[in-house]
Amino acid sequence: MHAESILYILDLAGTGVFAMSGAAAAMKKNLDFFGVLVLAVVTAMGGGTIRDILLNDMPPFYFHDAWYLSIAIGTAVVVFFIPSIINRLNTPVVVFDAIGLGVFTIIGAQKALAANLEFAAVLILAMLTGIGGGLIRDVLRGEVPFVLRKEIYASASLLGAMAYYFAVGIPVLAGWPAMLLAAAITTTTRLLSVHFQLNMPTEAPHIKSTKKC
Amino acid sequence: MHAESILYILDLAGTGVFAMSGAAAAMKKNLDFFGVLVLAVVTAMGGGTIRDILLNDMPPFYFHDAWYLSIAIGTAVVVFFIPSIINRLNTPVVVFDAIGLGVFTIIGAQKALAANLEFAAVLILAMLTGIGGGLIRDVLRGEVPFVLRKEIYASASLLGAMAYYFAVGIPVLAGWPAMLLAAAITTTTRLLSVHFQLNMPTEAPHIKSTKKC
Amino acid sequence: MHAESILYILDLAGTGVFAMSGAAAAMKKNLDFFGVLVLAVVTAMGGGTIRDILLNDMPPFYFHDAWYLSIAIGTAVVVFFIPSIINRLNTPVVVFDAIGLGVFTIIGAQKALAANLEFAAVLILAMLTGIGGGLIRDVLRGEVPFVLRKEIYASASLLGAMAYYFAVGIPVLAGWPAMLLAAAITTTTRLLSVHFQLNMPTEAPHIKSTKKC
Repeated sequence: MHAESILYILDLAGTGVFAMSGAAAAMKKNLDFFGVLVLAVVTAMGGGTIRDILLNDMPPFYFHDAWYLSIAIGTAVVVFFIPSIINRLNTPVVVFDAIGLGVFTIIGAQKALAANLEFAAVLILAMLTGIGGGLIRDVLRGEVPFVLRKEIYASASLLGAMAYYFAVGIPVLAGWPAMLLAAAITTTTRLLSVHFQLNMPTEAPHIKSTKKC
Repeated sequence: MHAESILYILDLAGTGVFAMSGAAAAMKKNLDFFGVLVLAVVTAMGGGTIRDILLNDMPPFYFHDAWYLSIAIGTAVVVFFIPSIINRLNTPVVVFDAIGLGVFTIIGAQKALAANLEFAAVLILAMLTGIGGGLIRDVLRGEVPFVLRKEIYASASLLGAMAYYFAVGIPVLAGWPAMLLAAAITTTTRLLSVHFQLNMPTEAPHIKSTKKC
Repeated sequence: MHAESILYILDLAGTGVFAMSGAAAAMKKNLDFFGVLVLAVVTAMGGGTIRDILLNDMPPFYFHDAWYLSIAIGTAVVVFFIPSIINRLNTPVVVFDAIGLGVFTIIGAQKALAANLEFAAVLILAMLTGIGGGLIRDVLRGEVPFVLRKEIYASASLLGAMAYYFAVGIPVLAGWPAMLLAAAITTTTRLLSVHFQLNMPTEAPHIKSTKKC
């Protein structure tokens, strides 16, 4: 099996897991069937869409390859009709989501490098690919995006993107090994942070919260 | 009168009604005059803008044809200074909004087909044209978009988009008849669902809501 | 020093001040370190990004010039580790923010004119450059954007954009003098409105608020 094929299959797997996270988030908010579909599709495609808008690569990839939308919509339908699947699949979903984050991150980094962008732009596009869908999902649910509030999620993506940027320049790692290494760093960092319940620090205590609601 | 001209006039009428819905939504939230203007313009133009970003057709259509912005801004000014107009026009607004939804849906489907996109992409772009403005309107108001929560709105758009996709392939319907038929299906579905107060199903009862607010 | 260089330096200064406003807004909501970084970058770059998406000028300017991102990220880091800086710099921040609003407004108006857009489009793109970052900042924080609710902010930007549009057509003002005049109008209007605590009017009193939360 070629490296490309493995990456493609992991990308579709990530699409399914992100769609599941979107569908579950919609159901917790009592959204209707259409809301569940939209949040599933938006969570799965949102990151790649923002990246491709910024790279001026429109129409988006999922308009050319029916697998992405079919998987996202199919996942939403299954979650809607068998909602118990979310709890039953809790642990596998965390693992697959971490794999999805790793895969989406290196796909974003690859596309940014292919567009000859510089370091900071590569990191931002890699992270946006990984976290963009979740950002839109949470905004549409009326929540402050969780990735901005807690947990090691975007940082795991950032670490993998940095690793990829440097690994790809080392002759012995260039190509497939760099991708594998970088995705593994993101996925492992994410899984370790979930296991040890690590969070990013929030602000200094003398700034008081002014939440009104 | 040509079919094109009728579609254009209906498009401008839809723009006005969507702008009215945005302005009314802004006033219910006590937004200031500028907020009323922005929500009117965003509700009227948002769907077409998202569609055209995804189709890489920038700058957007309303930068080339002053009628769209003039109608949206004019409507916002009228609603702001004569707010009683919203209640007085309640029933006509529901009817015109359903017509706007039908027209926006087929315009979106047409542009997607003209770009040679496949079935799922056509449906998504048709729906986004119809519902995208309302999505942004509700996010800017700090609400979960109503279209994700209840009522037959996006589904009415989806039904019309599907009808258009298939009707346009039937020689005797291709062109004007397919457009009329598809818009009529969306508008009628929407109006019937309002009249009979139909909603899409929400999630299974054993998933509890975790709304914090 | 050339006019271009002064505008560039003011643009970078505006970037820093807008980033500070984003970082401060994130810390008031108890977002984590990553959330502070994201809101700083998004507030500083959001307006220009929306403008350039609508002008089809992708990838965005800050992917080509590392100064923008460095300043935004650097500002976020400083605010995160020395949060007392926000209160200490309160008055200078208001002044620099008004300058940033003026500079961002004329940069937006210039780009829109260079793309041969008409009057309404120039005004919209000028305003979006000035207020777009703050709009996204507030949506990501789960707030109704302040610019839609109160204060003379977007209107100050609008006034400067109008002035620029007309001044640029007067031979004796074309170029540098028109830019200076228009930015000064926006900045002065904003500062006067802050000093006299002016607000835009909200809706007529007989429309009742239906806030649910």
